Amino acid sequence: MNIVYKSEPARGRQWAQLLAQLAPEATFRQWPEVGDPQQVDYLIAWQPPQNIMQTFPNLKVLFSVGAGVDQFDYASLPPELPVVRMIEPGLTQGMVEYVTFAVLALHRGMPRYLQQQRQQRWQEQPTPVAGACRIGVMGAGTLGEAVLRPLVAFGYPCASWSRSAKTIDGVRCYAGDAQLGAFLASSDILVCLLPLTASTEGILNAALFNQLPPGAALVQVGRGRQLNHQHLLDALDSGQLSAAVIDVTSPEPLPPGHAFWQHPAIWLTPHIASQTRPESAVQALLDNIRRFERGEAMIGTIERTRGY
Amino acid sequence: MNIVYKSEPARGRQWAQLLAQLAPEATFRQWPEVGDPQQVDYLIAWQPPQNIMQTFPNLKVLFSVGAGVDQFDYASLPPELPVVRMIEPGLTQGMVEYVTFAVLALHRGMPRYLQQQRQQRWQEQPTPVAGACRIGVMGAGTLGEAVLRPLVAFGYPCASWSRSAKTIDGVRCYAGDAQLGAFLASSDILVCLLPLTASTEGILNAALFNQLPPGAALVQVGRGRQLNHQHLLDALDSGQLSAAVIDVTSPEPLPPGHAFWQHPAIWLTPHIASQTRPESAVQALLDNIRRFERGEAMIGTIERTRGY
Repeated sequence: MNIVYKSEPARGRQWAQLLAQLAPEATFRQWPEVGDPQQVDYLIAWQPPQNIMQTFPNLKVLFSVGAGVDQFDYASLPPELPVVRMIEPGLTQGMVEYVTFAVLALHRGMPRYLQQQRQQRWQEQPTPVAGACRIGVMGAGTLGEAVLRPLVAFGYPCASWSRSAKTIDGVRCYAGDAQLGAFLASSDILVCLLPLTASTEGILNAALFNQLPPGAALVQVGRGRQLNHQHLLDALDSGQLSAAVIDVTSPEPLPPGHAFWQHPAIWLTPHIASQTRPESAVQALLDNIRRFERGEAMIGTIERTRGY
Repeated sequence: MNIVYKSEPARGRQWAQLLAQLAPEATFRQWPEVGDPQQVDYLIAWQPPQNIMQTFPNLKVLFSVGAGVDQFDYASLPPELPVVRMIEPGLTQGMVEYVTFAVLALHRGMPRYLQQQRQQRWQEQPTPVAGACRIGVMGAGTLGEAVLRPLVAFGYPCASWSRSAKTIDGVRCYAGDAQLGAFLASSDILVCLLPLTASTEGILNAALFNQLPPGAALVQVGRGRQLNHQHLLDALDSGQLSAAVIDVTSPEPLPPGHAFWQHPAIWLTPHIASQTRPESAVQALLDNIRRFERGEAMIGTIERTRGY
């Protein structure tokens, strides 16, 4: 098998070392060194080159290095080329850590306490018990299910919302547009883990925030273009939302002077919630290549019509 | 049974309502209204009155409303009076939530990210995987064991340190002065859950910090008088410690202008990690009174010689 990697170079060197150990029969090259382009079977990339099939005429599969696949321009990809997103335990674990951190922080009023600290105020704030703090997770795929597990264990009443109906132990599962309102009305902390698609772009807006219970909080770990920044600021100003933990924005990085940088009720991190970890990602890639070569379904293959 | 409550009045009213439901046969009064002092069997208090046995000559048990019992002046308490600390699930759950929040925040570098936010910097920081971030919990009682459970589940290598030897599933258990150095040397995040005793007063000092791995972080949820504030500031300045999440100080509140209020690497909360919750605390109190009246051992009885 002949693999080309086109993404962050330092990580690429880790991938090369790991592949040499785990699959010494494979040829692994880092873009822009690709050897004979006719020989390239698999491309693992964040952004593929323009004219991908002219560059690699015998390409068999395009793998994303990340969980997202919204960065690909599908119009430029031949419809028969399989596109596969990254599903690997390291990436999942990072997201579980981040969302658990963010939910605990919002439940326990930590943005407020850190504001009070800087104001030199020592003041207890009323805090509901976990059993009275309802969590709603939008997106119930691999990541959504994984983040729900510890939240259920902490005793939070948990719900999920997804395009198609799901069943998750201990979680009230809502699906489709018809059930979105009921889901939102019972989400004191809303976690967005949706993929970016035509129907989720801009979904985190005033109309949605107004359906949450007053004083609700937001964890945004989906994609930047889902969130209307001005609507978030308005909802925080009016008190409809109390606080937000934001890991993704549009654009990234935010421009200098953007209101999120200094807003006391916003905790902002630079798209670090979850990152592909070479150790487990190489294993997941090899596993999928072997499935493909045996004619089996790969884990994470994209359905082009729905976009994830 | 005749119970007097002497602590925060608003919570006392919740206790009164709950006791009326759960034990209608009990007489429950809130200090300073105590009825006939000769008739008082049980006192539940944060601070008992001076001359407790002259005030309540037939007192059978002194219960603390909190997990701590270091606020009592044992010299003024008759040696035969049982003293019982509060062990109840609400108090434990609050501590589990807070410590999990603090450990995840420190592991994932959140104090640094919030500093960067205010500096308008969008910069990823290297973060170890959970399996490479070692957690050490000082104090392996009810609370210590409870906080370790989710940390083990997140994949952190976990250790505990306590006065006497313990066995906890999935945790390396160290005990006694002889093993303190080895415990500290392998604690990237140190959580202090120790009770305040003569031997733990001032224990979080330069000598201890210097035995941690360079760049370690601290979660202080024990008692304020265990932490040397100046030594913590020095350790943060030198880089020996990278960050600290502090819930208890001495004094409380901190005075205006104290360095902790504005230190960028310190997250300070006003002693809110864990609070007795009337719903579950009343149940725990009644359970202990019934044990006492049946001649059984109560849960949380203090050994005076060791102070917890």
